[in-house]
Amino acid sequence: MRIMALLGSSRRNGNTEYLTNKVLDGVNHQTIYLLDKKIDPIVDERHTDEGFSYVEDDYEELFFEFLKHDTIVFATPSYWFGMSGQMKIFFDRWSQYMRDHRFDFKEEMRKKKAYVIVAGNKPDPKIAALPLIQQFNYIFEYVGMEFVDYIIGNGNKPEDILTDTEAIAKAKLWNDQLKTK
Amino acid sequence: MRIMALLGSSRRNGNTEYLTNKVLDGVNHQTIYLLDKKIDPIVDERHTDEGFSYVEDDYEELFFEFLKHDTIVFATPSYWFGMSGQMKIFFDRWSQYMRDHRFDFKEEMRKKKAYVIVAGNKPDPKIAALPLIQQFNYIFEYVGMEFVDYIIGNGNKPEDILTDTEAIAKAKLWNDQLKTK
Amino acid sequence: MRIMALLGSSRRNGNTEYLTNKVLDGVNHQTIYLLDKKIDPIVDERHTDEGFSYVEDDYEELFFEFLKHDTIVFATPSYWFGMSGQMKIFFDRWSQYMRDHRFDFKEEMRKKKAYVIVAGNKPDPKIAALPLIQQFNYIFEYVGMEFVDYIIGNGNKPEDILTDTEAIAKAKLWNDQLKTK
Amino acid sequence: MRIMALLGSSRRNGNTEYLTNKVLDGVNHQTIYLLDKKIDPIVDERHTDEGFSYVEDDYEELFFEFLKHDTIVFATPSYWFGMSGQMKIFFDRWSQYMRDHRFDFKEEMRKKKAYVIVAGNKPDPKIAALPLIQQFNYIFEYVGMEFVDYIIGNGNKPEDILTDTEAIAKAKLWNDQLKTK
Repeated sequence: MRIMALLGSSRRNGNTEYLTNKVLDGVNHQTIYLLDKKIDPIVDERHTDEGFSYVEDDYEELFFEFLKHDTIVFATPSYWFGMSGQMKIFFDRWSQYMRDHRFDFKEEMRKKKAYVIVAGNKPDPKIAALPLIQQFNYIFEYVGMEFVDYIIGNGNKPEDILTDTEAIAKAKLWNDQLKTK
Repeated sequence: MRIMALLGSSRRNGNTEYLTNKVLDGVNHQTIYLLDKKIDPIVDERHTDEGFSYVEDDYEELFFEFLKHDTIVFATPSYWFGMSGQMKIFFDRWSQYMRDHRFDFKEEMRKKKAYVIVAGNKPDPKIAALPLIQQFNYIFEYVGMEFVDYIIGNGNKPEDILTDTEAIAKAKLWNDQLKTK
Repeated sequence: MRIMALLGSSRRNGNTEYLTNKVLDGVNHQTIYLLDKKIDPIVDERHTDEGFSYVEDDYEELFFEFLKHDTIVFATPSYWFGMSGQMKIFFDRWSQYMRDHRFDFKEEMRKKKAYVIVAGNKPDPKIAALPLIQQFNYIFEYVGMEFVDYIIGNGNKPEDILTDTEAIAKAKLWNDQLKTK
Repeated sequence: MRIMALLGSSRRNGNTEYLTNKVLDGVNHQTIYLLDKKIDPIVDERHTDEGFSYVEDDYEELFFEFLKHDTIVFATPSYWFGMSGQMKIFFDRWSQYMRDHRFDFKEEMRKKKAYVIVAGNKPDPKIAALPLIQQFNYIFEYVGMEFVDYIIGNGNKPEDILTDTEAIAKAKLWNDQLKTK
């Protein structure tokens, strides 16, 4: 099992990162902070004659690194009731790589398992983040990736999440499962 | 009534733009193509001592232009079952302006009416775009903006949308209403 | 094409019935008022040795009538943000007929097309009825029935629906399509 | 604290009942099995001159018993991606009691806290039951009842639920909280 944690937050040491660390404590993995990467929004060239052209930023390297992992922990704060813009851009760029002839996109995706961690605050994310969970589910269904499970944590300020006993308990259960694999 | 169409697509002449033009045909309005603007993803500094700092890009000018309008048509393709990354970044940056002392963010928002146009393709966006509609609803509820209505159009390639008679019919109804105001 | 309108309202002459009549005006069809039928809630005997036993009420006759139609208009008011209890019981009883050896349940269902009409009031059903639309979608996906489209109408008191120009316009579009088939 | 468990299943000893027992183990409470009650679907008389008339079944007694409790555990299997018909009828009948002059319906509801337990099977209820959770949320928001939290358990045959370690862990956390109140 090769695990990647993909952190979508626009700051370090936030609640999604805290939960992700709980989940992966003692488990071999690679962490990517999207805020460290220069990734441009997609320019849709699906319907042009030439198709998509190469983009000069950090995405290509990141994407091939992503392909090497079979278990992905997508961790994002709930910003405006959705994933962060940083993470959204990560997914939008898939539209280019779906048409890439160097590999079979959907075949690669079907080998992967996805875990999702979302943290938000008011209104209660256990309800308000459900459309985001549904969006993740549509994404994973579309590409054939297995959606193992999700954690919705409640917290705003750093370390708020410590008081969300359910989210912490679920993170520990995931940790137990990932350790024994 | 001052109307702004905010286009989130990453290409011109797409189906969301076509529907938006139908809605605003003969109606005085300003159109913003987000793809023309340089807008950086937010850097979350809510919990730092200094708070948010000024960002050198096109957002500040765009945001003050946005404030001058009372009716906003948010038009975005469904990319990966959500709004485009470009539009998501537009909303994410609100988190900085909510804390701005030059104006009262929520009071400004409460004066506005929102229309939403989404276009997508497979699977059927009339179902698959519903989490996105729910996300828009959460956003508008949170800031107190009136969510007048939404159109979900079915189309992928340019001009596909012409065959979605329901979306076109609804765009014409909106057009009739906006013309008489 | 054999069309059945299945009305879930607990009263006659309501807004869902009005919309259904618009949709089926001049179109040959059979209308079933669930409120006229005596249908007991399901008793779950899936996990008993004997399985389900025959129930003495109007359901068996109704269900075989239902099977004879290939296009079903499911029309229900939004009661407490869901379909009416009467219509829910109609679906719950499917669990018995899925295990019936006299016919192949899923094969029969795959031949059918579903239209859904929902009418509600406050809060705005165009948002608040979306979980119900998602539920219908799950049901139809599960049994393989094609979910053609849905109308969400806004109305509470009888004839309120007349002022929902969008719902009326959509009903007329459906009517045009159904007439020419 | 006076706790009522309202069980919507159409059979005894199912997975929702098992989870409910875990939650309420050692906690003083009253359990109502809706399958033991004769409750007719609502007949909507809101728009008649006389309004609603008294119905001869078990609902009135049940409803006044319900009013005496301040913490309600709503437990239902996911039948066809919604609450059971039995539980839906329970809510539908509220429409009559909202107009009852013997007490102030919304004031009574605002005093109550709601816990929701749902158990389902395929497709994965952690996704497929989300519209049902959203429906419960709309109901509770509408009447002003606090929606404390929900558990979605995965199980079909009796005792399947024992293998859903997350649902069991969450039930124990709730149990700890309820015991100390």
